Amino acid sequence: MIVDSAVYRQGERLPVDCNVHDYDALRAAAEGGEHDFVWVGLFEPDEHELDDIATAFGLHPLAVEDAVHAHQRPKLELYEGNLFMTIKTLWYVDEDDAVETGEINLFIGEDFVITVRHGHGSELKQARHELEARQAVLSHGPSAVVYAVCDTVVDAYLEVLEELQIDVDQVEESVFSEKRTNDSARIYTLKRELAEVRRAVLPLREPMRRFTVGAVPGIPVEAGPFFRDVGDHLAVAAESIETLDSLLSSAFEAHVAGIQVQQNNDMRKISAGAALLLLPTLIAGVYGMNFDHMPELRWQLGYLWALFLMVGSSVALWAWFKKSGWM
Amino acid sequence: MIVDSAVYRQGERLPVDCNVHDYDALRAAAEGGEHDFVWVGLFEPDEHELDDIATAFGLHPLAVEDAVHAHQRPKLELYEGNLFMTIKTLWYVDEDDAVETGEINLFIGEDFVITVRHGHGSELKQARHELEARQAVLSHGPSAVVYAVCDTVVDAYLEVLEELQIDVDQVEESVFSEKRTNDSARIYTLKRELAEVRRAVLPLREPMRRFTVGAVPGIPVEAGPFFRDVGDHLAVAAESIETLDSLLSSAFEAHVAGIQVQQNNDMRKISAGAALLLLPTLIAGVYGMNFDHMPELRWQLGYLWALFLMVGSSVALWAWFKKSGWM
Amino acid sequence: MIVDSAVYRQGERLPVDCNVHDYDALRAAAEGGEHDFVWVGLFEPDEHELDDIATAFGLHPLAVEDAVHAHQRPKLELYEGNLFMTIKTLWYVDEDDAVETGEINLFIGEDFVITVRHGHGSELKQARHELEARQAVLSHGPSAVVYAVCDTVVDAYLEVLEELQIDVDQVEESVFSEKRTNDSARIYTLKRELAEVRRAVLPLREPMRRFTVGAVPGIPVEAGPFFRDVGDHLAVAAESIETLDSLLSSAFEAHVAGIQVQQNNDMRKISAGAALLLLPTLIAGVYGMNFDHMPELRWQLGYLWALFLMVGSSVALWAWFKKSGWM
Amino acid sequence: MIVDSAVYRQGERLPVDCNVHDYDALRAAAEGGEHDFVWVGLFEPDEHELDDIATAFGLHPLAVEDAVHAHQRPKLELYEGNLFMTIKTLWYVDEDDAVETGEINLFIGEDFVITVRHGHGSELKQARHELEARQAVLSHGPSAVVYAVCDTVVDAYLEVLEELQIDVDQVEESVFSEKRTNDSARIYTLKRELAEVRRAVLPLREPMRRFTVGAVPGIPVEAGPFFRDVGDHLAVAAESIETLDSLLSSAFEAHVAGIQVQQNNDMRKISAGAALLLLPTLIAGVYGMNFDHMPELRWQLGYLWALFLMVGSSVALWAWFKKSGWM
Amino acid sequence: MIVDSAVYRQGERLPVDCNVHDYDALRAAAEGGEHDFVWVGLFEPDEHELDDIATAFGLHPLAVEDAVHAHQRPKLELYEGNLFMTIKTLWYVDEDDAVETGEINLFIGEDFVITVRHGHGSELKQARHELEARQAVLSHGPSAVVYAVCDTVVDAYLEVLEELQIDVDQVEESVFSEKRTNDSARIYTLKRELAEVRRAVLPLREPMRRFTVGAVPGIPVEAGPFFRDVGDHLAVAAESIETLDSLLSSAFEAHVAGIQVQQNNDMRKISAGAALLLLPTLIAGVYGMNFDHMPELRWQLGYLWALFLMVGSSVALWAWFKKSGWM
Repeated sequence: MIVDSAVYRQGERLPVDCNVHDYDALRAAAEGGEHDFVWVGLFEPDEHELDDIATAFGLHPLAVEDAVHAHQRPKLELYEGNLFMTIKTLWYVDEDDAVETGEINLFIGEDFVITVRHGHGSELKQARHELEARQAVLSHGPSAVVYAVCDTVVDAYLEVLEELQIDVDQVEESVFSEKRTNDSARIYTLKRELAEVRRAVLPLREPMRRFTVGAVPGIPVEAGPFFRDVGDHLAVAAESIETLDSLLSSAFEAHVAGIQVQQNNDMRKISAGAALLLLPTLIAGVYGMNFDHMPELRWQLGYLWALFLMVGSSVALWAWFKKSGWM
Repeated sequence: MIVDSAVYRQGERLPVDCNVHDYDALRAAAEGGEHDFVWVGLFEPDEHELDDIATAFGLHPLAVEDAVHAHQRPKLELYEGNLFMTIKTLWYVDEDDAVETGEINLFIGEDFVITVRHGHGSELKQARHELEARQAVLSHGPSAVVYAVCDTVVDAYLEVLEELQIDVDQVEESVFSEKRTNDSARIYTLKRELAEVRRAVLPLREPMRRFTVGAVPGIPVEAGPFFRDVGDHLAVAAESIETLDSLLSSAFEAHVAGIQVQQNNDMRKISAGAALLLLPTLIAGVYGMNFDHMPELRWQLGYLWALFLMVGSSVALWAWFKKSGWM
Repeated sequence: MIVDSAVYRQGERLPVDCNVHDYDALRAAAEGGEHDFVWVGLFEPDEHELDDIATAFGLHPLAVEDAVHAHQRPKLELYEGNLFMTIKTLWYVDEDDAVETGEINLFIGEDFVITVRHGHGSELKQARHELEARQAVLSHGPSAVVYAVCDTVVDAYLEVLEELQIDVDQVEESVFSEKRTNDSARIYTLKRELAEVRRAVLPLREPMRRFTVGAVPGIPVEAGPFFRDVGDHLAVAAESIETLDSLLSSAFEAHVAGIQVQQNNDMRKISAGAALLLLPTLIAGVYGMNFDHMPELRWQLGYLWALFLMVGSSVALWAWFKKSGWM
Repeated sequence: MIVDSAVYRQGERLPVDCNVHDYDALRAAAEGGEHDFVWVGLFEPDEHELDDIATAFGLHPLAVEDAVHAHQRPKLELYEGNLFMTIKTLWYVDEDDAVETGEINLFIGEDFVITVRHGHGSELKQARHELEARQAVLSHGPSAVVYAVCDTVVDAYLEVLEELQIDVDQVEESVFSEKRTNDSARIYTLKRELAEVRRAVLPLREPMRRFTVGAVPGIPVEAGPFFRDVGDHLAVAAESIETLDSLLSSAFEAHVAGIQVQQNNDMRKISAGAALLLLPTLIAGVYGMNFDHMPELRWQLGYLWALFLMVGSSVALWAWFKKSGWM
Repeated sequence: MIVDSAVYRQGERLPVDCNVHDYDALRAAAEGGEHDFVWVGLFEPDEHELDDIATAFGLHPLAVEDAVHAHQRPKLELYEGNLFMTIKTLWYVDEDDAVETGEINLFIGEDFVITVRHGHGSELKQARHELEARQAVLSHGPSAVVYAVCDTVVDAYLEVLEELQIDVDQVEESVFSEKRTNDSARIYTLKRELAEVRRAVLPLREPMRRFTVGAVPGIPVEAGPFFRDVGDHLAVAAESIETLDSLLSSAFEAHVAGIQVQQNNDMRKISAGAALLLLPTLIAGVYGMNFDHMPELRWQLGYLWALFLMVGSSVALWAWFKKSGWM
């Protein structure tokens, strides 16, 4: 599905009188100035749609195949002057406390950018509008779009990580609460989601670094500081992932230690309870003996005495347990 | 065993009028054009068969020895202009939930490729057919065969990893189920198989990288993007291995934590059960005392009263256990 | 908020007759000599204040944005000849046993330094006074201020780490004490704080290294030994972090082992206690049997005999437990 | 002790008419041709024997000292044109299931090789015989001896690792058996032995790599493929070490998990046993109560009824435990 | 405190007719020959003493400050042609089983060496005497002193590690003994001491490497083999540290597993003990029932029968526990 396609000249959107599918007309319109370019935005296109574009813009078949099938690792590839880039998009689904993954593929030529988005995260409509409002940036040509897309996607990473931070805080609270909680599954799931985020974030650092130092043909050196900015955010995200992962590991260990402390406390409670039942049973056993000569048995208040003995000794035992910190 | 041998000219299989063993004739037939080459496919050849080929194609004795004995690490070696490559093949045996390992050795010269396969995985017949259907690729000469073999083998890695992913998902489900399961052995076996996959996948990355950047004599620079594609799949496989391994570790830890939680729950259940037996025993003990003056003993309904006391106190205790979350 | 702004010539503070906000006048005053420069010190400025300065000194918008929002990673960036540096400040809050984080941003030009401080740690007033007292150092120009700030901040790191060392020593003592303590939460919190310190310390090593070898334009080679000194302190801090972290991990493991030893000891105590109750109960049960012919029942002192048997056997059992090391 | 000393010319052993100690005569005999050399083989020589040789062949005192004292790390050192190499030998002692360590030191000059062996592993007599049978290889001069020694020693590594693999398989079987086994000590010992193997194997890789690429004076480039072969075996050994170590770690973890599962099973068995004793005790307690009006007590078959009740309730309880999977 | 100061010419100590404090006279005396130099040895000097020396020999203030305050990391720094080096000294205190740390600082110029020792380890008097006995070495000038100091200090590392090896062996024995031991604290302390040793050893490797390859001005290339020798010892020490650390980790894990096995054994013993008490209690309960018709109660030997039943069943149960391996 074609979301939008437009021609930009010196940072401004040109009014073009043709169909969004008419790529040749679009390209022709973009031939006017130095930094003129076409930006075609696609959402989960079928093979047919992409083939048309591939033909019109001369894209490499291996890259096109990757863009159709998605499920690539983040990467940046050079095909005879043109760039092909894959970025993972992430978003947090509140209902499930889960991180979902999409993908954006970019084909970058001298006079065109084609963005192919899969999955519902990191919509680019907003990025396009913001970019169209920053004429100075947009006038740099295709690299401005690359920057805008990367910036949008990486900001979404940070938002996802903030949500995960909240989840980790909740886990932490739960682990160190007095309540009997089973946090293993929660921690496991969070670790699994962090691993997903890591797979999106870490491989993107190398392309950003290369953009920053101006080592990629088609991305001008002046764009360096902008990509360094995105790279900084990526570094923050990477650091945040490692911190959260390590906190989860520590929280898990603390959780296991907590279970063992609980076990110990419970065992001591149980043993105290058992003693409180066994001691009066012993007393009852004593007065159940059949000796001919047991003075208490003849007492008028012997029964009361026995009950008092049972209750009294139990209370004393209970107090002793409490005082000694056993219970 | 010679599976197939053929001469290819400009991407097409030449009809050659000679025996599959007649290597000299085959080589002679391949001398016509620039990218002409012979492809000899062997399956677990004995030393004798390989010696013939070694003589005909001038292979290095150390490489031939490796190809006979198999059980090498994946590697790429240069012998006086010729290449020798070893790749591990993997396949998943459904009946045993096990990963099996084979090996393909390739001798690559300017005008020949010899593939020596050990074990039943990654048959190359299919790869040969597909390659013969892609004349443009095949016309690149021996490097096309190297690409086809690598591609076939690495795709099989991804399939094996998908099967292992399913196994890991099952383990995960089992670990977090309420049932009493002992998942240690399963996790251990999966870790062991992942280690086997890792040994096949990781050492192959370096040869792919060198093919991609065109640093290997005999593999033209134009073939780079194809090997980069294989390298991407390898990277996905490597990432998948690390993820699965780390998930298994986490699952194992969660399993151990689960055992401890289970232990704690069981202990509390046991203690409650014991209390439900000991409390009526105490009551029976009380009414088994031999005091002369115990009014209840004389009651007409004393016995019923005692039984009611036993049952009642037990029920009350049970309710209290339930309510307090102990049980 | 502007804390202080001054012009320095050959290591001495110039009396300048203008408002602290009058940046153009300050800059003009600093145009006299070779190493003359302006040092403007800001504390949590609002966007407006910074914009004025950015205009006056020609700062890059991306850098200014970073300085307003704070929460950056430590970094050193080159913008068209000017330097932008971010350093994390740390301080230890005794009341909470917690480490707090602030930030100092530096804009360094040929004839100016602008320091932007966020958070209450590492005040620079003291650093400025000390620096003004060391004319020889100050006469090196802006790089002297960079050195002074780095030195102040890194010394604060070492102080924070000393406080954390004390906390770790306390944890250690608690873990190996005989008392029943639950140190998980404490260890977890300390690990979390160490992670925060690590995030401040580690990324600063690379800028220090670059200052030391004279690889940063605007920082003269002669300043190398001074930054090497700061780098040494950073290395000590980094080593200290790793040591503390690893000690905490070991302490945690010892803590868990301690819980298990405790569990075992408690279980043996409990079992001994149970035996001390069950043995006399058994004896009472024996003399509660209803055989017609039980000689002891007829004895005058039978009851005493039974009580003696109960107490005696319990005492003997207790002694045996003690002697055998069970209890 | 001098084991053997000989002069080799063009790959053949020269008949020399002098004492094995007469180094000057040997050296003189080896001065004839280009690749002629002396090979002196020593076994645990005393300082005196080595001093003679050092004088005759001009060995560096630091190297000689190392060769006397043994207990060096594997290393390759260049002393003014001559090479000094230390290799660890390993052998497996079946009786103790233990790995023992020896050492071979090599002094390599243009026209001599001196091998100094310590410990009983990797005897070189066999290696000398095999080498003497391969004239083509031996004719390369001293580097052929280096190759033969390395090859022999590294093959012994692989044999030791196969033995350890068998031990690990046994541990694995023991860990996952139903029997109550204590595998900690076994696993610990194996880990310790693997560490010893690792200390022998890993530092040898760098010298092999340098031999392979021809970066060592005195080792000709043509010998590269041979040393690459040894290097491959070393790589297999290194991989095997890591795999075994990681398997042992996993096995240990599984062992600990197994103890906990066992603990849980035992606890449930114990609790069931206790219930089977406590329930009839309760029934006996009931019929031991002294109420005047307890009809069962008067029944002719009351006793049998009580016994039936005890046995019956116990059997029912037992059946319930079995059915519910508790026991 | 000045321990000794002397002038060396061509490897021999010159008789100098001046006070040990008269640095200018000493320096003047050392101006005669090419490798003449002064060696001043100090022990924990105060700031004043060092200032005199700094003035006389032209030392850099930052280096002097480091030498006064000690507590540096091992390092090698170049100050305008002069070298400053810090080495940690270690010694083992038998009474406490503890490792103590000192420090030696060296100032190395073309014609002087100043050694500043802090703490009681690695006295240099012995090193000076030994060096004075090796004229050939000493004639190399200041670098000979650097070698002698490094050699002495590193040999002390190896001695300390041997002591720690003994401690680890003891821990090992304790962990795998049958006795109930609590080895956590011991293991923790040893790990802590190993960390201290590591901090001394690891950073020294880089300076040794640089000395070895002759990359440090003032240390001649010919001294390389000597420093390589020290570097080898350092490598042995580093390897030993890693091995001991990893053994301690494994021993700790085995210790924890041992506690759990102990727990399980104890629990089974306890349960057996409880059964041996509960079974006769049940029998006593049976014969304590009040049925009118219980034949055994009327038997002449009923009481004996009951006692026999109790003892007999307990013995049988005990035998069964033993036979089934439960106890």
